[in-house]
Amino acid sequence: MDALREAVRTGRLVPGTRLPSSRTLAADLGIARNTVADAYAELVAEGWLTSRQGSGTRVARRAAPRTPATGGSPARPVRGRATHNLRAGSPDLGSFPRAEWLAASRRALTAASPEAFDYGDQRGRVELRTVLADYLARTRGVYADPERVVLCSGFVHGLTLMAQVLAARRGKARTVGRAQAGGRAPAVAVESYQLGIHRDILTAAGLRTPALAIDRLGTRTEELASGQGRLRGVDAVLMTPAHQFPIGAPLHPDRRAAVVDWARGADGLILEDDYDGEFRYDRQPVGALQGLDPERIVYMGTASKSLAPGLRLAWMVLPEALVGEVIRAKGEAPAVPSAMDQLTLAEFISSGAYDRHVRSMRLRYRRRRDQLVRTLAEHAPESRVTGIAAGLHAVVELPPDTDERATVEAAAREGLAVEALSGFRHPSVPPGRDALVVGYGAPTDSAWTGALAALCRVLHRPLT
Amino acid sequence: MDALREAVRTGRLVPGTRLPSSRTLAADLGIARNTVADAYAELVAEGWLTSRQGSGTRVARRAAPRTPATGGSPARPVRGRATHNLRAGSPDLGSFPRAEWLAASRRALTAASPEAFDYGDQRGRVELRTVLADYLARTRGVYADPERVVLCSGFVHGLTLMAQVLAARRGKARTVGRAQAGGRAPAVAVESYQLGIHRDILTAAGLRTPALAIDRLGTRTEELASGQGRLRGVDAVLMTPAHQFPIGAPLHPDRRAAVVDWARGADGLILEDDYDGEFRYDRQPVGALQGLDPERIVYMGTASKSLAPGLRLAWMVLPEALVGEVIRAKGEAPAVPSAMDQLTLAEFISSGAYDRHVRSMRLRYRRRRDQLVRTLAEHAPESRVTGIAAGLHAVVELPPDTDERATVEAAAREGLAVEALSGFRHPSVPPGRDALVVGYGAPTDSAWTGALAALCRVLHRPLT
Repeated sequence: MDALREAVRTGRLVPGTRLPSSRTLAADLGIARNTVADAYAELVAEGWLTSRQGSGTRVARRAAPRTPATGGSPARPVRGRATHNLRAGSPDLGSFPRAEWLAASRRALTAASPEAFDYGDQRGRVELRTVLADYLARTRGVYADPERVVLCSGFVHGLTLMAQVLAARRGKARTVGRAQAGGRAPAVAVESYQLGIHRDILTAAGLRTPALAIDRLGTRTEELASGQGRLRGVDAVLMTPAHQFPIGAPLHPDRRAAVVDWARGADGLILEDDYDGEFRYDRQPVGALQGLDPERIVYMGTASKSLAPGLRLAWMVLPEALVGEVIRAKGEAPAVPSAMDQLTLAEFISSGAYDRHVRSMRLRYRRRRDQLVRTLAEHAPESRVTGIAAGLHAVVELPPDTDERATVEAAAREGLAVEALSGFRHPSVPPGRDALVVGYGAPTDSAWTGALAALCRVLHRPLT
Repeated sequence: MDALREAVRTGRLVPGTRLPSSRTLAADLGIARNTVADAYAELVAEGWLTSRQGSGTRVARRAAPRTPATGGSPARPVRGRATHNLRAGSPDLGSFPRAEWLAASRRALTAASPEAFDYGDQRGRVELRTVLADYLARTRGVYADPERVVLCSGFVHGLTLMAQVLAARRGKARTVGRAQAGGRAPAVAVESYQLGIHRDILTAAGLRTPALAIDRLGTRTEELASGQGRLRGVDAVLMTPAHQFPIGAPLHPDRRAAVVDWARGADGLILEDDYDGEFRYDRQPVGALQGLDPERIVYMGTASKSLAPGLRLAWMVLPEALVGEVIRAKGEAPAVPSAMDQLTLAEFISSGAYDRHVRSMRLRYRRRRDQLVRTLAEHAPESRVTGIAAGLHAVVELPPDTDERATVEAAAREGLAVEALSGFRHPSVPPGRDALVVGYGAPTDSAWTGALAALCRVLHRPLT
């Protein structure tokens, strides 16, 4: 039957061709007539053949001859691959704790009730929400009742949901005549350096994204209180308080206070992107902002840095009043990560394997950071390495006569993927100092030394 | 430090309170002064305390006293749970092949390259796309080059992407002056009985959803060719050809031909929802429509019925020309299922475990279907069971004097969750015969007998 279907499909049997009767074909092939008749019936049911009283079985007109595969350009993968990946944002995937993860998976799946494999709660599995609430309280000072933990498929999924909620809220407020901010679109203030994709998500939801300046003490949250100019009528602010991305500084205590004060006074919301809060090297991690006012701060964390982006697993801890709105923004269909991964992560955390993994990665990344600082001090002393207290990347400020674009291009010629600081700059902000954002998380241990050497070669012959 | 933070948080230490100097507190507690100083510094950095030259360390004003958890209504879970679940759409989750899945997971994760845990290709992992292309060709007659397989997080995710693509396409066409269909919104024809949530997704994207009638031969696809009235300017049709949901009939060969002819003549697209194509009981499954014209048919399948909805894993096989558009609709952030599950499923299929599981479930479901038909014939002979050739549900037509709403309510009183056929009816279609849609997949083996008995009790005393 497959051979017959294929013959029709490829056009070997042209449309209209009358096929031998099932009796004849059966005799020819030396098989049972029923087998042939069944195959004919099947192919008629599928539309390959037609069967009409009196005219026998024919090849249907509609079977399109298969166009040969063009072999043309496959869709471009999301990221190209260079020999050395020093882009910010990826952890060392070679250190993914496979054995421990599999062991946790075995324990979790063995213990799970059948219902655990169903569609389930739009917030995610209660097992994981409970364990996460405890973990985040313990390690990040987050106030996290499991009822207000909502799991999502990566940070961007969470941010998209929040953007929808904010856009819808503002729309509602306007209808009842509250927000009369001169007909302006609702706004989420952002940091003047950030991932452009985060800004794009807010913009796509119809939100304005005015920028907050950054100085040595971190993001200038006190600008929010002025409520002047572009910051008039701001509904929320998206920020990275524990470790500004990509500049690398923690938010100064005064600035932490200022943003919370603003949120209280202006009925605003703070979206706290705690993307790598666990990785701080020289002292205890700075606790999350969220604990200061859980009803005005949305805490957003992810397993992408601590474990792997491929898990597509992130979490939000929401003000109680927002839980329903976020669930509604998810829509009617389940929008949660894989139940298998949720159950496994719950077991992975509660067994202590997550703490062990984070500790071991913290040591590993710290060692790399130290190597980076030491090596650049020796081989590229004109560069200055900043933003090194935490995280998986550093900012390498280039000597005054060095152009960052040219340096990135020179790096590409060395097979080195690294990004210019200006690539993270808000469009409204004037150019700052030329610098590279150097991620030291991504290379595997074996690739790291080579990547570092390539970076030194690039920085050693500055191009103007 | 945690105790101190908690004291501030709960309001036990009121804002403005001056704390003892680190030296004093250290002496009181009998610990090193540095330990206290570090804790103070930490809590200042986090915003719980303030420290000013000359005024010592005080409790910050901004730490909001924690409001006690309200213990109020947690957000409602997506589905309520009755004693017996006879809703259509869920497989027997008690039969999820845990041991085989874990074994596949172990093999897959052990063999994977580190890069497999990264963000990766927006279409999904190539390992899974390759294996699926082969599997779908073999079992469903799908023409599936891995390059045009796109993985998504459940069928609804795929449908949402297609809705976006269709809405965007039509918008573009209108700009260049092609589609002058009297200013009408772009349209996707749907079957007159379907899951309402699918219609909602299309509507939310700004698409009209005119209904195609259904008769004994299946969905009346020949209505598309007329292009009259509500079916004027239809861009696509969403259907379940292998097994109409929920009516239960396969699409007649003439109707298969008619819809493909329409797509060719009108430059239309067919969205083929092959949700349970693998489960057909009395003969070979009807092959997918997609093979008839892979450039005009989007094949959409899912692991929700064959394995478990909790995997959040589905796939589309796209016309080559659509691959780029669908990837763009996914946005810039990765919108793919868990890499762990993708790799595991690839291994699960290629090892033959998937075929074995589907075969074994087919037997199990067939046995249940036979029991359902036999038991109802004996205990509720006034009801007629239809749509039983395939799938995980049947339609139970009620006797003429029986009202389906009252029956569903009577069932609820028996702890039986079952749905009325009218709940799947397109709003533009007049009421048809009163019937129940009875899913026989969801109960575990141990619960099945009880569920069946409860159904008989409900049908045995008909309520008018």
